[in-house]
Amino acid sequence: MLSESERGEIASVRESEEKTRRVVSQGLEDILHQALPVLDHGFIRVVDYMGDDSSVVQAARVSYGRGTRKRNEDKGLINYLMRHHHTTPFEMAEIKLHVKLPIFVARQWIRHRTASVNEYSARYSVLDREFYLPQPAHLASQSSTNRQGRNEVLEGDEAERVMRLLRDDAQMVYDHYLDLLNEDESGNTLDPQRSGLARELARMNLSVNFYTQWYWKIDLHNFMRFLHLRADPHAQYEIRAYADTLLDILKRWVPLTAEAFLEHQLGAAHLSASAIKVLRTKLAGQEVSPETSGLSTREWNELTAIFSL
Amino acid sequence: MLSESERGEIASVRESEEKTRRVVSQGLEDILHQALPVLDHGFIRVVDYMGDDSSVVQAARVSYGRGTRKRNEDKGLINYLMRHHHTTPFEMAEIKLHVKLPIFVARQWIRHRTASVNEYSARYSVLDREFYLPQPAHLASQSSTNRQGRNEVLEGDEAERVMRLLRDDAQMVYDHYLDLLNEDESGNTLDPQRSGLARELARMNLSVNFYTQWYWKIDLHNFMRFLHLRADPHAQYEIRAYADTLLDILKRWVPLTAEAFLEHQLGAAHLSASAIKVLRTKLAGQEVSPETSGLSTREWNELTAIFSL
Amino acid sequence: MLSESERGEIASVRESEEKTRRVVSQGLEDILHQALPVLDHGFIRVVDYMGDDSSVVQAARVSYGRGTRKRNEDKGLINYLMRHHHTTPFEMAEIKLHVKLPIFVARQWIRHRTASVNEYSARYSVLDREFYLPQPAHLASQSSTNRQGRNEVLEGDEAERVMRLLRDDAQMVYDHYLDLLNEDESGNTLDPQRSGLARELARMNLSVNFYTQWYWKIDLHNFMRFLHLRADPHAQYEIRAYADTLLDILKRWVPLTAEAFLEHQLGAAHLSASAIKVLRTKLAGQEVSPETSGLSTREWNELTAIFSL
Amino acid sequence: MLSESERGEIASVRESEEKTRRVVSQGLEDILHQALPVLDHGFIRVVDYMGDDSSVVQAARVSYGRGTRKRNEDKGLINYLMRHHHTTPFEMAEIKLHVKLPIFVARQWIRHRTASVNEYSARYSVLDREFYLPQPAHLASQSSTNRQGRNEVLEGDEAERVMRLLRDDAQMVYDHYLDLLNEDESGNTLDPQRSGLARELARMNLSVNFYTQWYWKIDLHNFMRFLHLRADPHAQYEIRAYADTLLDILKRWVPLTAEAFLEHQLGAAHLSASAIKVLRTKLAGQEVSPETSGLSTREWNELTAIFSL
Repeated sequence: MLSESERGEIASVRESEEKTRRVVSQGLEDILHQALPVLDHGFIRVVDYMGDDSSVVQAARVSYGRGTRKRNEDKGLINYLMRHHHTTPFEMAEIKLHVKLPIFVARQWIRHRTASVNEYSARYSVLDREFYLPQPAHLASQSSTNRQGRNEVLEGDEAERVMRLLRDDAQMVYDHYLDLLNEDESGNTLDPQRSGLARELARMNLSVNFYTQWYWKIDLHNFMRFLHLRADPHAQYEIRAYADTLLDILKRWVPLTAEAFLEHQLGAAHLSASAIKVLRTKLAGQEVSPETSGLSTREWNELTAIFSL
Repeated sequence: MLSESERGEIASVRESEEKTRRVVSQGLEDILHQALPVLDHGFIRVVDYMGDDSSVVQAARVSYGRGTRKRNEDKGLINYLMRHHHTTPFEMAEIKLHVKLPIFVARQWIRHRTASVNEYSARYSVLDREFYLPQPAHLASQSSTNRQGRNEVLEGDEAERVMRLLRDDAQMVYDHYLDLLNEDESGNTLDPQRSGLARELARMNLSVNFYTQWYWKIDLHNFMRFLHLRADPHAQYEIRAYADTLLDILKRWVPLTAEAFLEHQLGAAHLSASAIKVLRTKLAGQEVSPETSGLSTREWNELTAIFSL
Repeated sequence: MLSESERGEIASVRESEEKTRRVVSQGLEDILHQALPVLDHGFIRVVDYMGDDSSVVQAARVSYGRGTRKRNEDKGLINYLMRHHHTTPFEMAEIKLHVKLPIFVARQWIRHRTASVNEYSARYSVLDREFYLPQPAHLASQSSTNRQGRNEVLEGDEAERVMRLLRDDAQMVYDHYLDLLNEDESGNTLDPQRSGLARELARMNLSVNFYTQWYWKIDLHNFMRFLHLRADPHAQYEIRAYADTLLDILKRWVPLTAEAFLEHQLGAAHLSASAIKVLRTKLAGQEVSPETSGLSTREWNELTAIFSL
Repeated sequence: MLSESERGEIASVRESEEKTRRVVSQGLEDILHQALPVLDHGFIRVVDYMGDDSSVVQAARVSYGRGTRKRNEDKGLINYLMRHHHTTPFEMAEIKLHVKLPIFVARQWIRHRTASVNEYSARYSVLDREFYLPQPAHLASQSSTNRQGRNEVLEGDEAERVMRLLRDDAQMVYDHYLDLLNEDESGNTLDPQRSGLARELARMNLSVNFYTQWYWKIDLHNFMRFLHLRADPHAQYEIRAYADTLLDILKRWVPLTAEAFLEHQLGAAHLSASAIKVLRTKLAGQEVSPETSGLSTREWNELTAIFSL
C-alpha cells in the first residue's frame, strides 16, 4: 500500500506541530496524515481540514466570536438545522483527503460534482502494479431480481476460476503496459531500439480495477450527501467500503453533526404521500392490503420492513 | 458504430416534426439526432437544444420579446459580452448531446463539472465488444521534453507490436469479461452449472479503451470553456477529436457567438504583465533578450512564436 | 404591470411559430411568453424550455430515439427515479423564465445557486416607480413563537398606519431617486445646472420592496428543489406566491414528473430514526409519550400532526 | 462599526491558541478574527482558512508529505499552473470571511455562485441603524459615454443636496422601520396597543444602502476570480473597496500565488486574434490605422493604451 519513502514522508509531516488561532478538531488531529486502509491496496488520508461542529453554529448565528454557547444549545441548533434542511451552515466546514482507489470506484466517486479534485496523471507518470481483487466473501453472482445488485457469493471451482481470470488478466495487461512504454518496473528502458509508446496512450491497456489516487476536497454538507448515497446498501460494496471509513472520519471530526446525521439522514426514512396514508390508516386500527395501498410492490415491501408491519 | 435498430430509432425520431413558439436554430435542426462519427467507434449526436444567438442578446437586454435588433447590433453586443467576460448571457442557451467515447476520454471529459451527465451503467447492463485502437498516424512515442506530450509516430516493427498488444489484450479481456458473466455475446448462459459474476464486478476486467456512452447537457458558456481547454493543442489527441466535432456544432448552432469565440478565445492570446513590457519595449524600437525579459524560457518561446519575433 | 409596448412585443413573439425536430411540451407552448401575474406588479413568463417528461426517461435509458415506451412504464420509471433520489435524469430538461419581483424576494431567490441569472441593471438603466405593497390579508404581525414567522393579520388603525408608512416612504424615496438623477419620470433633465448623481449611486436610495426583473434559467431537478423549499409553509408568503405559479408551470410542462413530485416530495414526510421508533411502537399497539419518545417538542408536534395521532 | 461586546468577543477569540498538525499561514494568523474596516461602517474579518501556497503544490503533485521542494521550484510550479489555467490545485485552499457590507454591494457580491454564504436574517432579527453614505470624493455624476460608469465628482450645492437627501431618507425609513415593528432602538415595545408588523415585512421599508452581514467561504481559485472581476476599474467603486482589502488578504495568505496572480491575471492582457495581427504588423515595422485594424474603436483604444502605441 505504501512504500518506505511514502511512510517516511507521512511520519515526518505528522511530527511538525504549530500554533494556530483557528478552531482545532482534536479527533482529526489524532489521525491527520495517516493512511487508513480500504480494500486491498487503497487508503484514505485526512490531509487538511477547516472548522468543526462549532463552525456550523458560528455561521448559523453569524457571530463575532466562536459562536458556541452551551453544548446542549449547540446540539439542539445542529439538530434543528439538519432536520429542516438548512444546509448552508454545514457548508462552512471543509475537509481534504488523499485517496487511493480503483478506477471503477473513482468513476462513481467523481459524479459528486460539488468537490475539488486533483488526480495523479497517467498522461504524466507511470502507474504502479496495483489492482483490486475482491475478497472471496465479496465475489458475488448477479442478482436475478435487481439488475444493479448482487446475489449469493460464488464458491468452489467458479470462485477459483473467477479469481484466476481477474488476477492473470490484470498481471498481463500491466506487463504489456510496461512493454508498450518500453520500460521495466524500475523505469529503465527495455529495448534501446524502440521509442516506447506515449504514456497517455499506453495507459489505455490498463483495466478499471487498477488503482489511481487523488486529492479530494469537499465541504461538510456535501460530504454528508456523499455518505448518504454511498454508505447506502444500494451502493456497490467497493465504494461503500470507502464510505464506511469516511463515516468514521465524520464522527471524529464533528461528533454532534455526525449524531444528527445518523438520526435525521442515514437512519431516517422518507415516506411518500401514499405511504403516509397507509400508516395513518393502520394507526387508526384499520387494515390496508398491498392492493389497496396505492404503493408499488417495492415501496410496500420497504414500508413494511421499516415499520415491522 | 450503430446497430440496425439504433439506426432505425434515429431515422424515426428525425422524421417527426412539430410546431413550436420557441426560437429555432436551423443549423442544428439539420443535424438533430444524427450520429456524427468520432474516432473508430465513437460519435456525437445533438439530441436537444434551447436557444440560439438571439437568446444571448435577449437575456443581456432582459427583453420582453425576442430581444434582437439589427444583425449588426446583435453581433456587436455578442462581441462586447465575450470580450469583457460577461459570461452570464451565454449561460442562457443549452445543448444536450448523446456521446459514445472511450472510458479514458470520458475520465477527462467528466472533469468539467458544470454539466449534467447520465452514463450507460455497466452495473446494470453488459457493455459491447467495442474498444478504441489508434490509427497508425496517432501511435506516437513519449515526448522527451514534455512529460504530458507525444513525440514522433512509431513505425515498422514497434508500431506493429504495439497495435498487436493493444488489440489482443482488448479482445482477451472482453472474452474473459463474458466468461466471468457466464454469458455469450448474445446474452445466453454459457454454463448452466455456473452462476456468473455480478455485472458490477465483471466489468472491472475491461480496460479503459473500451467505449462507454452518455447523455451530456451543458450551457453555451460552459460548452465554450470545454472547447477552450479541449480544442487546445495541449489536450490529448483523442479528446481533441471530440472537441473538433463540438466546434463544428457550435458554428451551426450559434454562428455569431462562434465567430466571437474564435476571435476572443480560441485565437486570442493571454499576455502576462512581463510579456506586455517586452512587447512595449520592442514596439518602442528597443531590444529585449530572453535573459532581460523576466520571462521563463517557455513563456519567451511562446511569445516569440505568437508575434513572429 | 406591462406597458403597451411590452404587451405588443409579447403578442408579436407569441404569433411566430416554426417547425422543430425537438420534443414539444404542448402545455408550455400554450402559455409561452405570456406574463402570469404574481403579487401586485410582478409576473412570471416562460420564455423558453428544453425537453419534457420523455426527456427524463430518454436520459435514464441513454436511448437512441425518444426513449419513451408505454405511458405506464414511463410513469413507473419516473416514480422510481424520484423515490430513489436518482436526480440526474431530471437535470436533462431545462426552463427559462422572465420574472419581475420585489428586491427582497429576489434576495431569497438568488440563494439557489444552481441556476443562471441575468438581472436588469440599475447601474445601467433607471428603475420604474413600482414597489410592492401587501394586500391587507397579508399584513401580519410578528409571530411570538417562531422568530421567522407571522402571526394574525393587523387590523384597524394599525393596518392603516402601516400601509400609509409603506406607501408614503416608497413614493418619497422614488421621488428623491429621480431628484438625485436629476431626471423626471420621462427621462428629461430636471435642472440643467445640475449634473445628476450616477445611476449606480442614486439607486441606493430605493427600498427593497421595489421591483426588479431578471431572466432565470434552471434545470428541472433544481426547479423542483426550489419548489420544495419555497412552496413550503415556512417560506415567506411573498416568495411562496411565486412558487405557487411555478408549481402550475411544472404541472403544464411535465405532468408525470409533477405527479411524482407531489407524491414523493411536496406531500411526503421525512422521519428521523427516533420518529420511526415511535411509530413502530404505536403500530405494535403500545403507548409512547412525548417524554419517552426521544423527540423534541417541535418534532413530536409535527409527527402527531402528520399521522393524526 | 463594532459594539463594545463585539470587540470583546473578537479579542477573546484572538487570545486562544492551540496546536495543530495542519499547515499554518503566519500572515493570516496575525490578522485572524480582526475587523478590517471598509467604507463607512463595513468590515472584512478572516474567520478561518485552510492551506497556503504549499497546499497548491502539494495537490498538483498528489504528494504524501507537504509536497513542497525548494522555494524556487514551488514558485515556478505555481506560475506554470496559473499561466496554463490549471485551476484545480488552487481550489485546494479555502478561506472564510465575516463581511459587513451595504445591501446593494451584497447583491453584486452574491452573483459569485461558487461560494458558501450565511447571511444575517432580517426575517429573524432586527437590523441596526447603519447605512452607507459616500464620501464626497465618491459622489460622482453619471458618465455620458459609459452607461455603467461615473463621471466627475459633484460639488457645491448639488453635492450637499445629494448628501442631505440620502442621509435624511435613510434616517426616515429606519425610523419608520422601527415604527412598523412597534419597537424602539433597544427593542422595547413602543405602543402596547399595537402588535407590530412582522420583521420579514417591516424590513422592506429599508433602502439598499443599509448594511447587512454574512459569513462567506470560498476556495482560493474562485477567490481570485472574484478579485479579477471586482478589483477591476469597471467594477463599481463600493465593491472595489472590498476587493482591495481582499487583495491585501491574498498577499498575506499565499504570497507566491498572489505574485503569480498579479503577473498573469490582474496585470495581464487578453488580446483578440485581430489585436494580435495589429501588434504583429506593428512589430514588423508597418503601420496600422484604426480603420484597417479590424478592431472596434473601444478595443483599439484599449490596445493602444496598454502598449503605449
